[in-house]
Amino acid sequence: MPDLINARVLKGFRDFLPEQEIARKTLIETLERTFRSFGFVPIDTPALEYAEILLGKGGGETDKQIYRFNDNGGRDIALRFDLTVPFARFVAEHRAALTLPFKRYHIGKVWRGENTQKGRYREFTQCDFDIIGSPGTGPASERGDFEILLLIKTALAACNAGDFTISVNHRGLFNLFLERLGAKDKLIPILHAVDKLAKTGAGAVREQLTLCADKNTAEEILRFISFKGTWEETAKMMTEAAGGDNPYSRRLSGIYKFITDSGCADGSGAEFRIDPSITRGLDYYTGIVFETFLREQPEIGSVCSGGRYDNLISLYSREALSGAGASVGLDRLIAALDGQGRLPSRKTYADCAIICLEAENYGKYQGLAAKLRAAGVAAEVLTEVPSDRLSREFAAAEKRGIARVIIPGAAGGAGSLTLRDLGTRTNREGLSIEEIINLVLSGRSAARRGE
Amino acid sequence: MPDLINARVLKGFRDFLPEQEIARKTLIETLERTFRSFGFVPIDTPALEYAEILLGKGGGETDKQIYRFNDNGGRDIALRFDLTVPFARFVAEHRAALTLPFKRYHIGKVWRGENTQKGRYREFTQCDFDIIGSPGTGPASERGDFEILLLIKTALAACNAGDFTISVNHRGLFNLFLERLGAKDKLIPILHAVDKLAKTGAGAVREQLTLCADKNTAEEILRFISFKGTWEETAKMMTEAAGGDNPYSRRLSGIYKFITDSGCADGSGAEFRIDPSITRGLDYYTGIVFETFLREQPEIGSVCSGGRYDNLISLYSREALSGAGASVGLDRLIAALDGQGRLPSRKTYADCAIICLEAENYGKYQGLAAKLRAAGVAAEVLTEVPSDRLSREFAAAEKRGIARVIIPGAAGGAGSLTLRDLGTRTNREGLSIEEIINLVLSGRSAARRGE
Repeated sequence: MPDLINARVLKGFRDFLPEQEIARKTLIETLERTFRSFGFVPIDTPALEYAEILLGKGGGETDKQIYRFNDNGGRDIALRFDLTVPFARFVAEHRAALTLPFKRYHIGKVWRGENTQKGRYREFTQCDFDIIGSPGTGPASERGDFEILLLIKTALAACNAGDFTISVNHRGLFNLFLERLGAKDKLIPILHAVDKLAKTGAGAVREQLTLCADKNTAEEILRFISFKGTWEETAKMMTEAAGGDNPYSRRLSGIYKFITDSGCADGSGAEFRIDPSITRGLDYYTGIVFETFLREQPEIGSVCSGGRYDNLISLYSREALSGAGASVGLDRLIAALDGQGRLPSRKTYADCAIICLEAENYGKYQGLAAKLRAAGVAAEVLTEVPSDRLSREFAAAEKRGIARVIIPGAAGGAGSLTLRDLGTRTNREGLSIEEIINLVLSGRSAARRGE
Repeated sequence: MPDLINARVLKGFRDFLPEQEIARKTLIETLERTFRSFGFVPIDTPALEYAEILLGKGGGETDKQIYRFNDNGGRDIALRFDLTVPFARFVAEHRAALTLPFKRYHIGKVWRGENTQKGRYREFTQCDFDIIGSPGTGPASERGDFEILLLIKTALAACNAGDFTISVNHRGLFNLFLERLGAKDKLIPILHAVDKLAKTGAGAVREQLTLCADKNTAEEILRFISFKGTWEETAKMMTEAAGGDNPYSRRLSGIYKFITDSGCADGSGAEFRIDPSITRGLDYYTGIVFETFLREQPEIGSVCSGGRYDNLISLYSREALSGAGASVGLDRLIAALDGQGRLPSRKTYADCAIICLEAENYGKYQGLAAKLRAAGVAAEVLTEVPSDRLSREFAAAEKRGIARVIIPGAAGGAGSLTLRDLGTRTNREGLSIEEIINLVLSGRSAARRGE
């Protein structure tokens, strides 16, 4: 006998068993439905690209993490590590075929050879949505900024994410503030320090800031980024700190007017705030930046982040294209919803199962199931034939996550059916197939309404 | 200015633009809905696996085509080239967590460094569905065989694939026939030759057969595989050629009884036949095998193939597990539907678009859109503001694939809306939001009914 191969996945990779995969798919479908309802359209790009394309803008950190190799034709290729760089390449390549403003979403896997000790995975799913093509400082881009924020709010509410805060900031405002402090030449180390406020706290940030700025400047920066207040209060403080009226403050108040006018700031537990500590580190953002925190689990970090960027395709084209976009961290969102007991939980999509009462009538049972399916009822036909008691079949159906079983009449009879509710352990007998369809469909609607 | 990077995808790889991706997603969603309606559940596995896992059973041809490399930790890894080998590994690894019979589907990308001159792609999508866990020769597996065939028929009909033929054969029957001819020791070269009948024709097969069998044997084989008749006629011929009644013939007639009893052989243009030339080459099948041909485009080859296999997990476990399954060749199916004008064609999921009449009221328009979306109407708010005439906005909406636009009242007024049908160029004025919702939803139902 040959040696067996050890059946195992690579470190940092995961299988998804049916119950997990159904939950993942349910969330992805909810996100997609929301994106589509805003008029965003899907695209797809290859998992593999020329390494040159992917690494053009990547920093040293990303370089080390990338899965890069030579193919059989000697090409230097790599697996995509995000969906943004391929999107930029896609836009440059297909520019002539795209109608601006172009609103696209893309849900797909990305790969990074990260240190798995941090609880991170080497294969994970990103859900990106962007709107590109309006000049970054023009009024249409203000509408674009707001549309992305509204879409985050709508998508997370649809995912049943509970109360959450969308924290917004503007890169330009922080730059003006540093300029007024005379610390603009230290922008990069200061951004590095500021970005860690939520993670490491004020003490550590102060310590790091004093390495690149004098004590007073460090305290002013710390006061600026630690400010807490309503959108208006924070906007007022920041405008003053930036030296008065400026286009970035006007952008933030324009967005806030849209939020208020839309009526979307109220209800469903979503809150929009300005958080002066949000800078998105050294990313390529040039306008607003934002992160989203679940109020019951702020410690897991942002579940949806993004911002406005200029020159999306500058690596591939001389054309200037501005855009705004965000990315849902699906794995993080799933972990959070799971922790809150908010994850959709089901083992099967079948609404009911037909018991295979007599082996020779299996074809008739599938014919019965076909009628149910044509009416929108998902009906599995159980493969096993009951040996003596039906109770074993009921248990088998329950184990498969099925809520109701149909017991057909003798000789495959479809005229007199029994519908058993496995939860209440009650039978309704002598039903026609139409009656079964109505009962199952109304039961499903009631379950959706939470009755 | 730095040099630009040439924005291009790798040879054999593809981007999907929105219209193509919507068509792809529509087909995938139709397939998934069908799988789910039979009680099949989804799983997912990593794109990367240990090369040892993927190559355990692969032949030399596959070895050369695989994307294989060492990761940064020095592991010998590869991208999956199908979904069957990862499924076997998955079942072996999670055996204790699975309820048998286990009915799973898996839709995902696979990668092969194939010669692209044949019009093949190096990245493509497979849609696999299998039912495993009933002993391969037992009566439950007969039900499993039929269920897979019925699922193929139901899924392709749901995809609007037109008339198609599901051609079935049984490996065991062909083996018995060769045994009777005294040619069983030449099984492998004969399978090689027979498999090419549809592609190369009888002449070429005869030539190849005479290389491994005498002239009379070659003629008998050719007569056997070229037989055309109804299911019953073909079954009768094959049973006689195999030396009379045998378990494989009984399996084929058992399946046919189920097909007839289910009423699923009739209507919708699907036809089940026995085709003695179907052998699935040197694959790992041990029972029934099948292929599916679109009657309007037989030349594109099988759009859904599969069969029954024993010892799915034998590389990883001593447990014997039999199963039956099939794989839809999504790219081939899409090409075929496209050729027949049967591919779903739309540029957007938006049912309507709201014109951004006045820039300052954009928030109100999004609030209006939010009400439409909550009622199930997908509503895009156009980002651009009309400069003078609305006709330019109508044209822009049409270019985005939108069928209806909503013109809000002045000052963001939501009480008196105009709904314009861009197809008929007619307006309905003075509508409430509820009236708009009803008109759009009923327009969508009418479009679905093909009115």
